Amino acid sequence: MRFKVGDKASMSKTVSESDVYLFAGITGDLNPAHVNEAWAKTTRFGGRIAHGMLTAGFISAVLGMKLPGTGTIYMGQQLKFTAPVRIGDTITAEVEVIEIIENKRLRLKTTATNQDGVVVTEGEALVMPPRE
Amino acid sequence: MRFKVGDKASMSKTVSESDVYLFAGITGDLNPAHVNEAWAKTTRFGGRIAHGMLTAGFISAVLGMKLPGTGTIYMGQQLKFTAPVRIGDTITAEVEVIEIIENKRLRLKTTATNQDGVVVTEGEALVMPPRE
Amino acid sequence: MRFKVGDKASMSKTVSESDVYLFAGITGDLNPAHVNEAWAKTTRFGGRIAHGMLTAGFISAVLGMKLPGTGTIYMGQQLKFTAPVRIGDTITAEVEVIEIIENKRLRLKTTATNQDGVVVTEGEALVMPPRE
Amino acid sequence: MRFKVGDKASMSKTVSESDVYLFAGITGDLNPAHVNEAWAKTTRFGGRIAHGMLTAGFISAVLGMKLPGTGTIYMGQQLKFTAPVRIGDTITAEVEVIEIIENKRLRLKTTATNQDGVVVTEGEALVMPPRE
Repeated sequence: MRFKVGDKASMSKTVSESDVYLFAGITGDLNPAHVNEAWAKTTRFGGRIAHGMLTAGFISAVLGMKLPGTGTIYMGQQLKFTAPVRIGDTITAEVEVIEIIENKRLRLKTTATNQDGVVVTEGEALVMPPRE
Repeated sequence: MRFKVGDKASMSKTVSESDVYLFAGITGDLNPAHVNEAWAKTTRFGGRIAHGMLTAGFISAVLGMKLPGTGTIYMGQQLKFTAPVRIGDTITAEVEVIEIIENKRLRLKTTATNQDGVVVTEGEALVMPPRE
Repeated sequence: MRFKVGDKASMSKTVSESDVYLFAGITGDLNPAHVNEAWAKTTRFGGRIAHGMLTAGFISAVLGMKLPGTGTIYMGQQLKFTAPVRIGDTITAEVEVIEIIENKRLRLKTTATNQDGVVVTEGEALVMPPRE
Repeated sequence: MRFKVGDKASMSKTVSESDVYLFAGITGDLNPAHVNEAWAKTTRFGGRIAHGMLTAGFISAVLGMKLPGTGTIYMGQQLKFTAPVRIGDTITAEVEVIEIIENKRLRLKTTATNQDGVVVTEGEALVMPPRE
């Protein structure tokens, strides 16, 4: 297998209002926490926050585009949402191989961090990389 | 607590090509499995498939819009991707309360099924509902 | 031919963050210069900039919508990107007929300018207008 | 310089109707050739075609994401639109280094091809890669 424990890859994106609104429209998750600024101001977060699954999508992007990359089968994902992502935050999603299972599947640590180094999402992915 | 074990809610949506393309654009996941039909035809899936996290977004939509609904804090999610979602599939995402933890958090079984009853995603969510 | 050397047309648009993000998503060009504000701040441009081809799209819009207008065949375009376009800039794309070739094709000077009069893109287009 | 003549990179995407419509909306190029199927059926192309600058955007994506990649300054582009791109076509954009200028700039041949191997766009790019 061409992957080894410790291999890493990442991507970064500043989350825009339009990202959050399009995500809301695609998924139907128009929870006021995401699309109602007047209401969101009254919550503990003090404003609209991005969908957790948008950040999860960045993790998916790294898995499908970089490590393991094209042809990867996504088998599972565990996610903990540990801090809010606000519109304007720059999120870095990173994946790191932590286990190679029966020479066929990879377990990866998946972490998303904001521009201040705060972990916003953590968890693990299970994937089947393409044949070599 | 106004929720009890066994409470259920769901939503359904037909996944369009534009849903998949917008999801790709927002997340940066332009994996050819999602946006390159010529290549995707050569894979085991026989064509482009939707991002797993798009289906996960439907689950998130039910949690945030219906059960528990507005004000819910999403703490975590486990996902298994058990079958591909193709463009044109109609996906039903369902959540069901399976445990009430310390009268403050809910554990829910989360399942997404296609129009033929095939489970495409299964797992569990952990949420904190809004104060009553 | 109903066109003559010196004929001009233009359009203007303020470039929004969502324009840049959608353009990134459609084309797959999620270069951090366009979508990562934290990184872009460290570059010579001091922040995110729009894709050059987005400005080129404004030129294409004038050609296809105004001069020569509906039915035009776009044969070629030369582009020089001479200054960055920032989110919030108002860009005016202008085209001017500079040559009529064999009474069938037009060569046009194509210029895009920001709100301060700085030329951000210049070049030439070659088009075949519709039959009269 | 870490690049040499002959270096190549590419990306592929199936052009969707939503790509064309979003591109139209962002640029304002709602030329009926792109968004009016009834009218487009009466033209030599027999249906709606994608904007040439959308294909040019794929070239830009390869330059900014792969070769030379992050930090590249896009200086100029020549484009010839040699065949129409239809909704549903899978386009491969490829760039190839053809000259290294004063050890600072690259000239690249840029070609976009459809799923049948027909060249739809050809030309050259001039870029300044990031410092090593």
